[in-house]
Amino acid sequence: MDLKKIKKVGIIGVGFMGGSLALALKKSFSNFEIIGHARSDKAFKRLKRAKVVDRIERSDKKIAKEADILILATPVGIIVDFLKRMGSYLKKGAIVFDLGSTKEEIEKVAKKNLPKEVSFVGCHPFCGSEKRGAEKAKQNLYQGAICFITSSNKASYLVEKIWKKVGSRVVRVGPKTHDNITCLTSHLPHFICFSLINAIPDNYLEFSSSGFADLTRVASSSGDLWADIFLTNKSKILKHIDKYNQISNKLKDSIIKEDKKKLKLLIKKANKKRNKIL
Amino acid sequence: MDLKKIKKVGIIGVGFMGGSLALALKKSFSNFEIIGHARSDKAFKRLKRAKVVDRIERSDKKIAKEADILILATPVGIIVDFLKRMGSYLKKGAIVFDLGSTKEEIEKVAKKNLPKEVSFVGCHPFCGSEKRGAEKAKQNLYQGAICFITSSNKASYLVEKIWKKVGSRVVRVGPKTHDNITCLTSHLPHFICFSLINAIPDNYLEFSSSGFADLTRVASSSGDLWADIFLTNKSKILKHIDKYNQISNKLKDSIIKEDKKKLKLLIKKANKKRNKIL
Repeated sequence: MDLKKIKKVGIIGVGFMGGSLALALKKSFSNFEIIGHARSDKAFKRLKRAKVVDRIERSDKKIAKEADILILATPVGIIVDFLKRMGSYLKKGAIVFDLGSTKEEIEKVAKKNLPKEVSFVGCHPFCGSEKRGAEKAKQNLYQGAICFITSSNKASYLVEKIWKKVGSRVVRVGPKTHDNITCLTSHLPHFICFSLINAIPDNYLEFSSSGFADLTRVASSSGDLWADIFLTNKSKILKHIDKYNQISNKLKDSIIKEDKKKLKLLIKKANKKRNKIL
Repeated sequence: MDLKKIKKVGIIGVGFMGGSLALALKKSFSNFEIIGHARSDKAFKRLKRAKVVDRIERSDKKIAKEADILILATPVGIIVDFLKRMGSYLKKGAIVFDLGSTKEEIEKVAKKNLPKEVSFVGCHPFCGSEKRGAEKAKQNLYQGAICFITSSNKASYLVEKIWKKVGSRVVRVGPKTHDNITCLTSHLPHFICFSLINAIPDNYLEFSSSGFADLTRVASSSGDLWADIFLTNKSKILKHIDKYNQISNKLKDSIIKEDKKKLKLLIKKANKKRNKIL
């Protein structure tokens, strides 16, 4: 498939991520007609107001039949559900790719349920936000962001071109490695932040420093999205929570024992690791 | 004491916090001569280059003898040590205040060790940074920041005027309440961040999102400073770590049991609390 010949691009789930991708694609590919899905009256009106797609359809089946490229930008649970339900409606030769935060289960379900004439490419742009809704969409969201691609079929090279065109740095890893990386650098931190903020009494929240505000920003992230992420990556998140607890217990022990030398050593280790991110 | 009549202000520990206060005081009070302490040759040269104080002295005793107001801006352990050692050198009628991150122990040590002719005021400006060194000092650091004052003597009202003049919002609480608030909104988050980043393998750090970078920013904070904070607030931090672990175990349980409803409920609770910070 030649990118210049593509006419219709469907997006299922035009929220902050899907809406931002719609804007970025519109800017980079003048030949694309972007069709967004909105099932309910309310969603339809809201999406119309956001002005991020060229056309809105109420039926995902209609979009599936038309689209040369179909993008799944919903929470993981709905992506899985879509892949299970919609295989027979998809256009022959279409490419389907997703933006889901976990990849092992999605790749498995796609392989099992999509017809041979349709190519699936697992993607995960690593630039989430606690922002929600297409009306907050940002055209340059994907600029400079890492985008993981976890499939290695022919279609994946065409999808790679799309991500590069909107400014992303593509990183190719298998779905298992992907889920390990994101579990540690995204899911575990979210898990910890949700727990941390739930441990703070309401009347103390007004005394939080700017550091605390930064630190807990991700605790605003959606429950619908994150319940799915935790449950579709269950074994890994549980494994990494246990690993975190072991490491946190070491630090706690050095406080209990008043072992200042050990305490400083563990903090210096953290400093060193943190400085690798900058 | 009248603020207009004060001539000499000494600062022990002219790092990022002390240096920023030096700049802010210089701007707000043209009558202050700011004297900074630097024991070693190296520290002396570095402080001279930073250009944040009017004069540098090698002897803290000399500064103690001269200063109308003496500010202790070192890590908590060194503040405690100073208060134990220096009582007899302080100028009669002087006001000593500190910027230490924990207050119960400091207030206790000050009460026990300082002469009656000297007033001690416990302060904690709540605008720390992972930045270090006087050369990074910011004149407007205290602008808009909360400053806790944990003493209620006469001198504390004069010190309150100083903090208000440099733009801080003064909050008066007792040392015990202070240590509980900061333990939950600052010490516990630091503890968690140090542990979290130590749980991430080095080769995964390059794949971290901007959310992860924000989240772990405080993990760059100094081991010298934080070992002292944890150890001088030992019983509270241990209590709050246990409380955090209980809450985190609830969230973990809902993942183990695949209880999506409970999981969403706990995340929504976190969302609601987080939104109170904005």
